[in-house]
Amino acid sequence: MTDELQKMTLLPRIKKPADVQLLSVEELEILGQELRDTIIGTVAAHGGHLAPSLGVIELTMALFKSFDIGTDKLVWDVGHQAYAHKLLTGRVEDFHTLRQKDGISGFPRPAESEYDHFGVGHSSTSISAALGMAMARDLKGEDHEVIAVIGDGSLTAGLAFEGLNQAGDLGRKMVVVLNDNEMSISRNVGAISQFLSRKMTTPFLQRLKTDVEGLLGTIPKIGGDLAGYAKRYGDSVKSFFTPGILFEAFHFTYVGPIDGHNTAQMVKVFEEVKKLDKPVLVHVMTTKGKGYEPAESDPTSFHGVGKFIPETGLARKFSGSGLPSYTSIFGSTLCNLAAKDDKIMAITAAMPEGTGTECFHKKYPERFVDVGICEQHAVTFAAGLATQGYKPAVAIYSTFMQRAYDQIIHDVCLQNLNVNFFLDRGGLVGEDGATHHGVFDLSFLRHIPNLVLMAPKDEAELAQMMATAFAHEGPCAMRYPRGTGVGAKVSKTPRKIAIGKGELVREGEDAVIITLGSRVYPAMEAAMELEGKDDIKVAVFNTRFVKPLPKKQLLELADRYDRILLVEENVMAGGFGSAVLEMLNENDALQGKRIKQLGLPDQFIEHGTQRELRSMVGIDSEGIKRAIKALLK
Amino acid sequence: MTDELQKMTLLPRIKKPADVQLLSVEELEILGQELRDTIIGTVAAHGGHLAPSLGVIELTMALFKSFDIGTDKLVWDVGHQAYAHKLLTGRVEDFHTLRQKDGISGFPRPAESEYDHFGVGHSSTSISAALGMAMARDLKGEDHEVIAVIGDGSLTAGLAFEGLNQAGDLGRKMVVVLNDNEMSISRNVGAISQFLSRKMTTPFLQRLKTDVEGLLGTIPKIGGDLAGYAKRYGDSVKSFFTPGILFEAFHFTYVGPIDGHNTAQMVKVFEEVKKLDKPVLVHVMTTKGKGYEPAESDPTSFHGVGKFIPETGLARKFSGSGLPSYTSIFGSTLCNLAAKDDKIMAITAAMPEGTGTECFHKKYPERFVDVGICEQHAVTFAAGLATQGYKPAVAIYSTFMQRAYDQIIHDVCLQNLNVNFFLDRGGLVGEDGATHHGVFDLSFLRHIPNLVLMAPKDEAELAQMMATAFAHEGPCAMRYPRGTGVGAKVSKTPRKIAIGKGELVREGEDAVIITLGSRVYPAMEAAMELEGKDDIKVAVFNTRFVKPLPKKQLLELADRYDRILLVEENVMAGGFGSAVLEMLNENDALQGKRIKQLGLPDQFIEHGTQRELRSMVGIDSEGIKRAIKALLK
Repeated sequence: MTDELQKMTLLPRIKKPADVQLLSVEELEILGQELRDTIIGTVAAHGGHLAPSLGVIELTMALFKSFDIGTDKLVWDVGHQAYAHKLLTGRVEDFHTLRQKDGISGFPRPAESEYDHFGVGHSSTSISAALGMAMARDLKGEDHEVIAVIGDGSLTAGLAFEGLNQAGDLGRKMVVVLNDNEMSISRNVGAISQFLSRKMTTPFLQRLKTDVEGLLGTIPKIGGDLAGYAKRYGDSVKSFFTPGILFEAFHFTYVGPIDGHNTAQMVKVFEEVKKLDKPVLVHVMTTKGKGYEPAESDPTSFHGVGKFIPETGLARKFSGSGLPSYTSIFGSTLCNLAAKDDKIMAITAAMPEGTGTECFHKKYPERFVDVGICEQHAVTFAAGLATQGYKPAVAIYSTFMQRAYDQIIHDVCLQNLNVNFFLDRGGLVGEDGATHHGVFDLSFLRHIPNLVLMAPKDEAELAQMMATAFAHEGPCAMRYPRGTGVGAKVSKTPRKIAIGKGELVREGEDAVIITLGSRVYPAMEAAMELEGKDDIKVAVFNTRFVKPLPKKQLLELADRYDRILLVEENVMAGGFGSAVLEMLNENDALQGKRIKQLGLPDQFIEHGTQRELRSMVGIDSEGIKRAIKALLK
Repeated sequence: MTDELQKMTLLPRIKKPADVQLLSVEELEILGQELRDTIIGTVAAHGGHLAPSLGVIELTMALFKSFDIGTDKLVWDVGHQAYAHKLLTGRVEDFHTLRQKDGISGFPRPAESEYDHFGVGHSSTSISAALGMAMARDLKGEDHEVIAVIGDGSLTAGLAFEGLNQAGDLGRKMVVVLNDNEMSISRNVGAISQFLSRKMTTPFLQRLKTDVEGLLGTIPKIGGDLAGYAKRYGDSVKSFFTPGILFEAFHFTYVGPIDGHNTAQMVKVFEEVKKLDKPVLVHVMTTKGKGYEPAESDPTSFHGVGKFIPETGLARKFSGSGLPSYTSIFGSTLCNLAAKDDKIMAITAAMPEGTGTECFHKKYPERFVDVGICEQHAVTFAAGLATQGYKPAVAIYSTFMQRAYDQIIHDVCLQNLNVNFFLDRGGLVGEDGATHHGVFDLSFLRHIPNLVLMAPKDEAELAQMMATAFAHEGPCAMRYPRGTGVGAKVSKTPRKIAIGKGELVREGEDAVIITLGSRVYPAMEAAMELEGKDDIKVAVFNTRFVKPLPKKQLLELADRYDRILLVEENVMAGGFGSAVLEMLNENDALQGKRIKQLGLPDQFIEHGTQRELRSMVGIDSEGIKRAIKALLK
């Protein structure tokens, strides 16, 4: 137990959820402060999702006080706010290992604790999952509670709507807690979010009366002055809503809004809510980053953070490269290219900062759209823009782009539209772990007809590929890793590269490494070391493209080398190496070759630093060296 | 021009949308009848989507009369209702080629006509696409109209909600026509659909006044008698809605409901709507199958039909096998298995009939859920059920399962839950064409860790694989083709098969065909003919599994044969053959082999019969024979 923990009076004694139920309201206040201190201290030391977890400390305690977490099922949406949940479910002593390899995961994981009832990471799954649990309970004739906690940001996603719509239809007993902090990761968007912000107040209800009486006088007369009618009707109706009315439309009983930092009040409400035998939505108002001033005043920056100094909130200088991230290179290059091409637009799904499009937003507000947590809509909306001659850049993390797989096929590639996809965090993402690795993208994109699929080896190539994509009449996608590159100088006017052409980046006669993207430099490093220490001379070829492959060049290489190593930061199944194998086989170029695929195995990879994970799966320069030596044996 | 068409007075003269604008209201009535007759006659002769298109004839004419289709952009959701649109946009003379190879597509296709402004086929894309067009228009400073026509069924999908939510937020001028026929393909589900059915009437508005006054007296007192309050509040609010109020919540101006078979009235409304400079939703009530009695009285059966006798609506006896379809074998086997395992459940996404789960619904209503057109929710909901020990069967067509790719990874396979996926219409689907082929599933599923992926060669193997899947503790998926199999006898108590084991279905020494699913019998046929006519003796191996592959057996085959043909009804990129290549390479088993992959090329395949398309891409028995001969040269 850490020194900090030893000083605490309550938190170290909480071994299981039931222990929380024994505490008085006064003790819960002390516990809240201990949770807050522990979370701030741990995240300051290791990084993590700070603001979301600080915002729901009182809500978490109220849920644990009111419900029997364990028998009662609790599903956290996204799960980046579940640190207090982890601390109250027997993980206090291990909490200092948060997000570290073999340590506590940053998200609820059923494999980690019996109290993590559903594995989460991506947004907006909680209502659907909880509804499944509620139906299972009823089928089994059990009578426990099922609770989903979902943020107002997550509620913008279609999946949440689908869940809400069916939960209302089925009418099963369940509680949806709407954790309304008026933010997703960044500011919130969408008509519904504007609407949620109109809270139910007494003056509001009085105004409602007048409005409704006005409305009742205006029955539509079709063919009459419809425009005038619509205006009057619209104006009346618009000011006529409470959030409750929306959820009642979905057949939920609405309760709220209530103060999400008043534990005692929430406990009272939950006790009443338990008596209702139908879907209930409890609307709770919280402040992201609550109780930690730096996070309260800048919740976007403190959504997910690296190490920082707890007293000030200032980021710790870390021994990193100090280089700009791929994300920021993408953002600045997008602005540079857009300056000369007014058809370039940028679309993000609730992550202007995370995807580097915030600068584009400031510079070209009219060509920027944040669609909210709506990856499907982002892609189809972009397709609509592209039919009219625009060139939308859809910037979405690789792992979240999985949500728009059908739209990429059906709305973009089938129509061969000039929509360009920028998949940040392609490859192993690090501490966010299994739910967030972007390690399937090469496999789920490369079989889609018409799509050009690339991965840059460094920052300069990213810029060149971007120029190439916007100039190409048809869909393009590229993926690049989380973090920084090698510091390659990026041109403000990047040149296009030839589609389907790679480059030999190092000569060598004993074998060839064929790779692309994040693995090109580690391959070169491995080749250099092999030459220096082992006198093994290995060529390195950067294909740049997964599709179309540089077929002619690859066949020449296959002609020249009988030892070939294929390296990628993606699952091997159906990925880049698989594509090269298919092509070589199709061209009868496999004879007499020894070929080895290096990439991710057929299993989910947990969390750890990128360096640790790449080493573990053997795709770092050490792994590449080992593979070359084995290949040459 | 057909005889029927020659007898018509108006339709043959409509060469472009503007021609419709010249017609009087009386002439539109005649035109409507001619459209109806042409659609019924053509679909009776060739099959197609009948009921949806008959339901929107007047709506289509009203849109063409009121808007300048061409300059004004029109996006049909799904597009199976666009036959009248096709007939009014210069395709009268070619309409008899509907859904036939090289003929008119069953869905809007920009490549087919400049008046098809967005390619569709899957549901719920129209609002997003139209919003993109509206934004593009505003950026370019143009002033045309943008119209999306979406059915009430399509509105249940999250994507439609995402589009609606953002359209309201952006406030661009656009028209969404809600084509409300109270059905999707089957009966509609979801809280919202119940809600839509409460139409705005004068007595309703009077009741509203009373209810609101009652409501105004009940301000929530937190901690008081919440249950009682919630009941009163809920009861008041529930009867308080009109569909208009819902859409106004999304910042749409709501107009309706209006009669979708009264062309003149709709024209008047659209003329008024054009004057509004904001998002408008026009709620139009239509009857699916309108004007054709057999379709009106059974719109589900007449949603999509084969050839029928127009006078009676009775299906034509076609020279088919008369065998039960894979769909019905799936349905009956599911019932058989569920009779002995009360944990088996069935989930469909708005297609109980299409997926064969309707019989399960009747037999086990409490274990059946139709989630509406919500593939994402279907999968996550199933995951929730599986966490509680249930074994949901998620039955969704292969092409629509693309929408739930992320949920399969993130909510099911990452948690290794016993959710089983049944992908009907895997492979080339035939007349529905490019938007509907299920030819990516082996590629997008096989790289997901923990998933067992299979394809049955016939009906009996389908049943065995189903028994295997429910007995396996973890996720399984299987895909089977549209249509009938070979008539294999299906056991009511199918035995499990060994996971990762295949079977040699034919001996032969010259080469081996390694295949699975729908290609096993054509491969055997090819092998038989090769032996009979060409004295070539080819073995055929059915792997049954794409994952895990029957590794040991395949390595033995590779040891025995130096000519190997890999055959699949899937894109070759990243698919089954690719998996075999990867595995053989990993085990250094490629030396001295000539291997050929047969499957779909890297391009979208248009419509035609399954037979024509399989022949075209060379995966029928003829294509397999050719490939074997080439391989043995």
